[in-house]
Amino acid sequence: MLSISDRVKSLKGSPIRRLTPFATAAKKRGIHVYHLNIGQPDIPTPASFMEGVRNAKIDVLSYSPAMGIAETIDAMVGYYAELGISLTRDDVIVTIGGSEAFCFALQATCNPGDEVLIPEPFYPNYMGHSIMNGNRVVPIRTRIEDGFHLPPMNEIERLITPKTKAILFSNPSNPTGVGYTHAEIEGLVKLALKHGLYVISDEPYRELMYEGEATSIMSFPEASQHAILVDSISKRLSACGARIGCLATRNKDVHAAVNKLCQIRLSPPTFEQLGLVAFLKDKNHKRDIAGIVRKFHARRDTLFDALQTIPGVVCRKPEGAFYIFVQFPQIDDSEAFAKYLLTDFETGGETVMVAPGADFYATPGRGTNEVRVAYVLEEPKLVRAVEVLKAGLATYVEEKAGVAAR
Amino acid sequence: MLSISDRVKSLKGSPIRRLTPFATAAKKRGIHVYHLNIGQPDIPTPASFMEGVRNAKIDVLSYSPAMGIAETIDAMVGYYAELGISLTRDDVIVTIGGSEAFCFALQATCNPGDEVLIPEPFYPNYMGHSIMNGNRVVPIRTRIEDGFHLPPMNEIERLITPKTKAILFSNPSNPTGVGYTHAEIEGLVKLALKHGLYVISDEPYRELMYEGEATSIMSFPEASQHAILVDSISKRLSACGARIGCLATRNKDVHAAVNKLCQIRLSPPTFEQLGLVAFLKDKNHKRDIAGIVRKFHARRDTLFDALQTIPGVVCRKPEGAFYIFVQFPQIDDSEAFAKYLLTDFETGGETVMVAPGADFYATPGRGTNEVRVAYVLEEPKLVRAVEVLKAGLATYVEEKAGVAAR
Repeated sequence: MLSISDRVKSLKGSPIRRLTPFATAAKKRGIHVYHLNIGQPDIPTPASFMEGVRNAKIDVLSYSPAMGIAETIDAMVGYYAELGISLTRDDVIVTIGGSEAFCFALQATCNPGDEVLIPEPFYPNYMGHSIMNGNRVVPIRTRIEDGFHLPPMNEIERLITPKTKAILFSNPSNPTGVGYTHAEIEGLVKLALKHGLYVISDEPYRELMYEGEATSIMSFPEASQHAILVDSISKRLSACGARIGCLATRNKDVHAAVNKLCQIRLSPPTFEQLGLVAFLKDKNHKRDIAGIVRKFHARRDTLFDALQTIPGVVCRKPEGAFYIFVQFPQIDDSEAFAKYLLTDFETGGETVMVAPGADFYATPGRGTNEVRVAYVLEEPKLVRAVEVLKAGLATYVEEKAGVAAR
Repeated sequence: MLSISDRVKSLKGSPIRRLTPFATAAKKRGIHVYHLNIGQPDIPTPASFMEGVRNAKIDVLSYSPAMGIAETIDAMVGYYAELGISLTRDDVIVTIGGSEAFCFALQATCNPGDEVLIPEPFYPNYMGHSIMNGNRVVPIRTRIEDGFHLPPMNEIERLITPKTKAILFSNPSNPTGVGYTHAEIEGLVKLALKHGLYVISDEPYRELMYEGEATSIMSFPEASQHAILVDSISKRLSACGARIGCLATRNKDVHAAVNKLCQIRLSPPTFEQLGLVAFLKDKNHKRDIAGIVRKFHARRDTLFDALQTIPGVVCRKPEGAFYIFVQFPQIDDSEAFAKYLLTDFETGGETVMVAPGADFYATPGRGTNEVRVAYVLEEPKLVRAVEVLKAGLATYVEEKAGVAAR
């Protein structure tokens, strides 16, 4: 009889999705909502990209080659070369966003039942795509007190079983902002070599590193057969709606496998591939990216300092990306708290929306007193949003104490 | 150790892919290749669509809503209303091409091990996505002599097992051009109701029907819980590179399931969604589509008549799409024949590329004396291409007979 597949049934709905109607209702009541919950930058997309789309000389909007337009692949190879990452056009495949790239990486390498190690907390869609591919996510536990850096490698090694096929992570990380050190990535590479695992490194926030430089998985030649780079232009170009990413690997078998997956979905969108070519050909593209990075760097400092004014708050200054993962020891259900902010609280006609922490954990019970805060607003707004959050936390804790006392 | 997933390993490489290097080599030798092998129209994309992309007022190219921009969904609902298909904005989901729509339809409804009935020959990517979703394709055999219309319903019913979850087809069909009659679709709907199956109807060629009208699965109210419509603007707008399609269903559970799948891949591309809005808002959009249909109609007649001049050829005049499936009883390996045309034949400095028939069959040994011919060239070129094909067939058969006689 008619039914829904088991894997889709086991996909968790997003808590952001559950909370959104409350945000909409708050706005209808005339309340301004500061959105600290989303990973969507507010910075204008560079003009060269937009002009590349608008000036594209296209008469028949035909399928692009399944692995991407040759010019786009070459432009990507050039971009990596500027960063000192040596790739050829035979290594790089254009994907429909970074999402498709890690989906393909899992599909190409993992059978149903295989296990994937992922440092926790992690980007929730890693779980979604793992479920759809029939894989079990094995979390590598990290701690807020350590700034979410990796535990000792022997702890990670203990998680490896005969079913382990890959280690997957983002670096710098969504949702924690941690930028792994060279030694950490090297440690993972050694484990991968020792145990025959793939290392899938998701690096869309590469330039958004404010302490040192991000270490790319592609900078370990000894891991050439193990390394799969996942990338996206969404964040560094503030072009999330372009749906342009890539998968790069020097492993010919993985490349051929991903090629097959590309064939069955036909092609990535054409206009945006040409937009990227125009952006990367523009002599100012490094300056454009640097401008975006500078904004986020300043915001990180401002947001971090503002958060320190909240009594009891636990967080470390993250090295990169545009998120801070924050613990409020006073609360025990951050989704209820996030909902409260939207339904039962306002100050000066304003409130704030945050992303509940549990959504980023596979381990039940973890993250329930944590939230992810994104700094995708201008600095004065960030400062004000934290004031509102602080006030909301205070009244929430007070009201909860009142309820408990009754 | 490092390996490739079993499902990807079992994805057949496309024969077109295998043949393409030979076409490239032929072109390098100065030979003109008529491409009858592809499903990529040569007709310019309507100006209103292109202007919609170019004039899109976008400052920050942000993620669109996962299920599509509200305006795009509304425009699609309006398009269906013009065709007499009544859908609401809660039924329609924008997808990244029709490919993603049937991928989602399978993922939402079928567990690994479930079976999907598909009339054979069929679009090869149905097989690719079924393999990736762990499903078994059970072919419904059709015959070239019947113009690939469906066999009697009791024959189809005998294929249904407790594992059968859905019937999937394109109408009118890629690769055969058959347009199923109302009675045929009604027969499938009755089977679906009786056995609790989903009916997934892929209708990107809807307007490209030259005898009567295409019957949409959405015109059977009794199947509202069973029907899943898959659609794409690729063919009717000659906009394959836009990667805009949709999935529509009145089944709320399926809609909710597909919504979850949309969330984990984030969003369809923004610019092209706005291009579609501009196209459908333009008062000339029906005329634009009708102009494209008229061209293909004339080409079908021209190509069909030309094919009749080939000795021994077996084909029926197809009702729709832009393909004719052709049998040459003289040959026994149409991939070898297609390769021969590219490597060992030319006439007047020209040759032709066709799609080998076996690629469209799941049943081993079927289609080996058949090819798919697409009419995506102007009429004089089609006529010439068939002359070339005819000459190539004659020398191929002659040479083979010579080899056999030695």
